[in-house]
Amino acid sequence: MSDPFSYLDSMRGAFINELKELIQIESISTLSAKAGEVRRAAELVAQHLRGAGMSTVQIFETPRHPVVYGEWLGAPGAPTILIYGHYDVQPVDDPEKKWLTDPFTPVEREGNLYGRGSSDDKGQIFANIKAAQALAQNGGLPLNIKFLVEGEEEIGSPNLDHFIESHQELLRADVAVISDTAVLSLETPSIIYALRGLTYLEIEVSGPEKDLHSGQWGGSVHNPLQALCEIIAALHNPDGSINVEGFYDKVRPISAEERAAIAKVPLTESEWKRQTGAPQPWGEPSYSLRERVSARPTLEVHGLIGGFSGEGAKTVLPAHAKAKVSCRLVNDQDPHEIEHLIRRQVEKLTPPTVRSKVTPINYGDPAVVPIDSAAIKAAVDAYQRGWGTEPVFMREGGSIPVVATFSRMFHIPVLLVGYGLSDDGAHGPNEKFNLECFYRGMRTMIALLQNLGKMTPAQVKG
Amino acid sequence: MSDPFSYLDSMRGAFINELKELIQIESISTLSAKAGEVRRAAELVAQHLRGAGMSTVQIFETPRHPVVYGEWLGAPGAPTILIYGHYDVQPVDDPEKKWLTDPFTPVEREGNLYGRGSSDDKGQIFANIKAAQALAQNGGLPLNIKFLVEGEEEIGSPNLDHFIESHQELLRADVAVISDTAVLSLETPSIIYALRGLTYLEIEVSGPEKDLHSGQWGGSVHNPLQALCEIIAALHNPDGSINVEGFYDKVRPISAEERAAIAKVPLTESEWKRQTGAPQPWGEPSYSLRERVSARPTLEVHGLIGGFSGEGAKTVLPAHAKAKVSCRLVNDQDPHEIEHLIRRQVEKLTPPTVRSKVTPINYGDPAVVPIDSAAIKAAVDAYQRGWGTEPVFMREGGSIPVVATFSRMFHIPVLLVGYGLSDDGAHGPNEKFNLECFYRGMRTMIALLQNLGKMTPAQVKG
Repeated sequence: MSDPFSYLDSMRGAFINELKELIQIESISTLSAKAGEVRRAAELVAQHLRGAGMSTVQIFETPRHPVVYGEWLGAPGAPTILIYGHYDVQPVDDPEKKWLTDPFTPVEREGNLYGRGSSDDKGQIFANIKAAQALAQNGGLPLNIKFLVEGEEEIGSPNLDHFIESHQELLRADVAVISDTAVLSLETPSIIYALRGLTYLEIEVSGPEKDLHSGQWGGSVHNPLQALCEIIAALHNPDGSINVEGFYDKVRPISAEERAAIAKVPLTESEWKRQTGAPQPWGEPSYSLRERVSARPTLEVHGLIGGFSGEGAKTVLPAHAKAKVSCRLVNDQDPHEIEHLIRRQVEKLTPPTVRSKVTPINYGDPAVVPIDSAAIKAAVDAYQRGWGTEPVFMREGGSIPVVATFSRMFHIPVLLVGYGLSDDGAHGPNEKFNLECFYRGMRTMIALLQNLGKMTPAQVKG
Repeated sequence: MSDPFSYLDSMRGAFINELKELIQIESISTLSAKAGEVRRAAELVAQHLRGAGMSTVQIFETPRHPVVYGEWLGAPGAPTILIYGHYDVQPVDDPEKKWLTDPFTPVEREGNLYGRGSSDDKGQIFANIKAAQALAQNGGLPLNIKFLVEGEEEIGSPNLDHFIESHQELLRADVAVISDTAVLSLETPSIIYALRGLTYLEIEVSGPEKDLHSGQWGGSVHNPLQALCEIIAALHNPDGSINVEGFYDKVRPISAEERAAIAKVPLTESEWKRQTGAPQPWGEPSYSLRERVSARPTLEVHGLIGGFSGEGAKTVLPAHAKAKVSCRLVNDQDPHEIEHLIRRQVEKLTPPTVRSKVTPINYGDPAVVPIDSAAIKAAVDAYQRGWGTEPVFMREGGSIPVVATFSRMFHIPVLLVGYGLSDDGAHGPNEKFNLECFYRGMRTMIALLQNLGKMTPAQVKG
């Protein structure tokens, strides 16, 4: 028996190859046609959970994609940790041919592993499974572990809340850990204490009852594409704030203290330019870039659909136009109320020359995690020992709705212990996972499990 | 030998079947992949020209799709007529599944023949070829005929002007006829005396250099989809007029006399609603609906492209967004100058947070045809004898750039003798051609050829 860290060093190459196998599976949850691939990924995750020493591993059905569950409860009296992750991935549609290599053929390049899901979230949940395996095979797990790995995160986890609610006894734990976020940088890891929520919806504008010839009818019909542009344009004020009545009513102001803390890990304009490549920052002028991307709510257009999108010219005046839109939300905004406010605003902005319809796609609550618990302190120490540096505390702009669910249902701390980097290209082309992050992530999780195993359940739960 | 009208009656069913064969060919000129089908259509048109008695039939190559030419010059001293049409068709992309039957499987339903190109323009040019055949086989053609049938009309005839210029002697005639327009109604045929021109272009907006995660960067990056919507929205004023500096400078005002004439064939709001199905008219309030769709310039969006267009949710903040836009133009607007004005306006509307680019796709000049010539009188009589009713004079909102080319190059009258109906669904789903229009169209062309054949070339040329 060696120690888990040495074991990890000896297995580094093998674990990378195993991760590649998982990335090869095209588990795109939003595409019905990929349901079989999503299931294959679930089965491979289940197999690795067994390999990590989980004594019970089960694939639960849901109305859409399965949930993988694995547990080892062989440490009576020790705390129980619930580790959440997801094995589904974002789509890879690539009209601009930006992917340099096939998204589902993982390739190592300059210390990174390229492939859809490498960072979000296959690589990160895999690091946690392998950390458990390293402990299980080298002296045994120091605490009880439950893994919950879902296949619907990228479509807003429509069935997860119901699953958790109806399996509360099975899932009950003293602390939850999620690795699905980015650290500030390889040199400076970070622990997330706040996440934005989400309201995702479609806005559809209809005009004529069928596509018309623009030569024949143009000038007399309010073109639905144009009307949609007018509505979308009107949803922001010129200063970048959102023009939806009541939108900011429940936004909790950022305290002076927190603003000062955020200012300590600034997002500089040059760093912003390096990472986005965009010509100039945009957004609410009275908030810093770091605040805009994490502590303030947003409204984004994700897709415009309508009319002719082929090569060359077609002079159609189309019957319909559609936009995919989402809002990132902060405490205490309610995703359903925001949907209602947007619907009302779109109705108000719709002239009598067209009709409009707002259809919700999915929701997620914003979340704030208390940063002064013993569990968080265990995580800070785990980064120090496992990653090699003390972490900073940060807000995260993305949405992980299950964080709010865990807090609400189990009243336990939820630790956001991420291993990604902000330039990983999650959701975009050429997604990658830094292999040094993968390695340090596994080390951090080994250290975290060790730290929590030395505590009592009551200490962990805080 | 019977007379051409009786011959037509006996051949009615056979001609419909022949037209169906032509519609079956998927001659979509804008799609490179359909180039072979476009050529097949050219060959079938050539075959019918031979059947109509043309003594020389030739397929000319161009850089893209071929031009079909056929002539019979066996009436020395008689006038020469140049009959133009096109055998290419619009695309049939059908994301909303609106086509009730396959676009390239022509089907007769309630007196109409459904299929892409049935009305625009296969059915109409076919009517003219069959009218020539009816005369050729029943007493002989009364005048010299030249057919010019191109395969690039739906992509803006990029090679036609050059072809005409370099074949002036071959094509020289005393009058030109084009059947590619709609009559007012089956009961009231119409002759078009003005056509709108066209400037078709793409507006592209770029922001970040790759697609980003909206959770990670949203709120700090000017979303190109939103910026595009803002630019598109700003290209119109709230009253429906176009907000492009200088756009109206060269628009010839509609004379009081012409406004009075237009008012005699009004487009009523109820008829507009019946045909468009849209909730309420839109556009410049100081112009009547008929004026808006024919005598005034427009700016239309034909497609919006960018971001995620699939099923469900993807939270991408895309790098690019594109709009397909065209302007219908009236005398004396110049299509190239309008492109320049739009480019300048888009530049002015582009904030420093994104980049924009305007790319021209194609152009067409507006045209006005003198309505007091002997040739027009021959056409009026032809409708009376062939269609059965006296035609009214109308403007047409669409664009047929070759009209301006013929006038400019040969200084001859160009007769727009159309057989379509405005609800034929040209360019949209379920395009159809009324079979009674097809029949009366053939009769009208027989009568027109007879009328012109009784005149001298000088009388025809006017």
